[in-house]
Amino acid sequence: MSISEFEQRLAATAAAVETCLARSLDGAGPVLPAAPERLLRAMRHGALDGGKRLRPFLLLESARLFGADPDKALGAATALECVHCYSLVHDDLPAMDDDAVRRGKPTVHKAFDEATAILAGDSLLTLAFGLIADEDGLSASARLGLVALVSRDAGAAGMAGGQALDLEAEGRALSEDEIATMQAMKTGALIACACEAGPVIADAAADDRARLRRFGEIVGLAFQLADDLLDETADAATLGKAAGKDRGRGKKTLPALNGIAWTQDRLAELVTQAEAELAPYGAKATTLIATARFVADRRS
Amino acid sequence: MSISEFEQRLAATAAAVETCLARSLDGAGPVLPAAPERLLRAMRHGALDGGKRLRPFLLLESARLFGADPDKALGAATALECVHCYSLVHDDLPAMDDDAVRRGKPTVHKAFDEATAILAGDSLLTLAFGLIADEDGLSASARLGLVALVSRDAGAAGMAGGQALDLEAEGRALSEDEIATMQAMKTGALIACACEAGPVIADAAADDRARLRRFGEIVGLAFQLADDLLDETADAATLGKAAGKDRGRGKKTLPALNGIAWTQDRLAELVTQAEAELAPYGAKATTLIATARFVADRRS
Repeated sequence: MSISEFEQRLAATAAAVETCLARSLDGAGPVLPAAPERLLRAMRHGALDGGKRLRPFLLLESARLFGADPDKALGAATALECVHCYSLVHDDLPAMDDDAVRRGKPTVHKAFDEATAILAGDSLLTLAFGLIADEDGLSASARLGLVALVSRDAGAAGMAGGQALDLEAEGRALSEDEIATMQAMKTGALIACACEAGPVIADAAADDRARLRRFGEIVGLAFQLADDLLDETADAATLGKAAGKDRGRGKKTLPALNGIAWTQDRLAELVTQAEAELAPYGAKATTLIATARFVADRRS
Repeated sequence: MSISEFEQRLAATAAAVETCLARSLDGAGPVLPAAPERLLRAMRHGALDGGKRLRPFLLLESARLFGADPDKALGAATALECVHCYSLVHDDLPAMDDDAVRRGKPTVHKAFDEATAILAGDSLLTLAFGLIADEDGLSASARLGLVALVSRDAGAAGMAGGQALDLEAEGRALSEDEIATMQAMKTGALIACACEAGPVIADAAADDRARLRRFGEIVGLAFQLADDLLDETADAATLGKAAGKDRGRGKKTLPALNGIAWTQDRLAELVTQAEAELAPYGAKATTLIATARFVADRRS
């Protein structure tokens, strides 16, 4: 699969997720009737028109790998993006990472206010589980499996727990192991969740589920390494957010500890591991493998 | 049912919910393995050892009314309490209601810090949906129905939306209708959710579901009126939180607008409506009707 083919496919999914998000966050729509308009605007500010929608893409492509119809999983994919966006809105708050710019726009608490940002994040998280439950095209066991999976990976033993570890770490030097644990939870858990969601949606075998989980964990590692590398090397215009923030805060990252050449070698190694993990699926896994490469190579 | 019988039953349910919460929030337990200990402590601070556990009680008693085994719904009842506790943790934050004391203890952001309080609330909310999905004793349709119901009533069109309306209202005078809408969302939605959850758990008929919803909305109105009356008349020692805060902030409540005698008449009227709503169930509804009376009469 060529890079331009891959990017077209990624963009098509992003557009479909955008449409589903916009419909879900429309006060005149069926999902959130009677929600206060200002709160909905804050939710839209935090969720619409942003990002590559990587997690929905991984979910839909991993579902497709096991024969599920991606059209029937779009609500579940959108739910995962709601969880991701909620985490960005809350992580940007003054009490957390205190960021003023996200995706080239003011963060939600800057564009609205702190209380509204907290509630918008809460509401996006709450919406996510409703979107999964309402996904009529999926079996009941698939939907329940997804709710359980997202709850585990987004919560205190996953993404939110990783953010807590990250905040606890400010001002002290973490070991490489501690950094790895924190990042596996903070960033890796939701990416692994997206990949594991595919076999859950398709009611696939436990072995497939475990394999896609491992693939997702590898992609998560690559994603974080590439992110940290960008923080070392890119500028704010490229990132759409402040660059060098981790360095400025004294946060240690693996690229900062081990250098750029080490990081590039490690990224290549992770891509090889990702390919090996999906080798049993042959050509069917082409898109997911292209995604792993894309994540490792990304420049923004 | 005598008051002491009712209170014994309420206390027994509260103890069962406490046990279930404590097990769910144990880092050595099966629900949240590997969660950071400090975050878990903050979650326990916000959730354990507090309150009458009214929402779980309403859920379990409304499930019992339709023949469901309450023992099989304890996780779902605990989930609802997690949602309630998350909302208290976030509402107490400096950017929201800025409260320092809750249930006679420092609020979570006072005992820990703001970031941890935000994450503890997020994690309690996330946990709630996992507890429902994992409730093996319930049918898949009941569990999915609960996830959808809780998502609707806790989110932007329910509880979180009500809190947003309440914050928007600070510094301007709401009409009685606006107050009623805000309170129906902020407080009423989760109480109505608890009552509607019973027929959902029992896979009961749509008519029963609608009837329990109406009953729950009446109980929610009574709860809020009694709360506002207490804010007018009680002291902080009785409440375990600051008294007179609404008055101090210039927030208008119905008791403040209409007086204490009007409020007491209105509470009696709501109890009568609640009784009428459950009349078709005869003696089986005794406990739920006693709950409505308890809510209207409560002095703390």
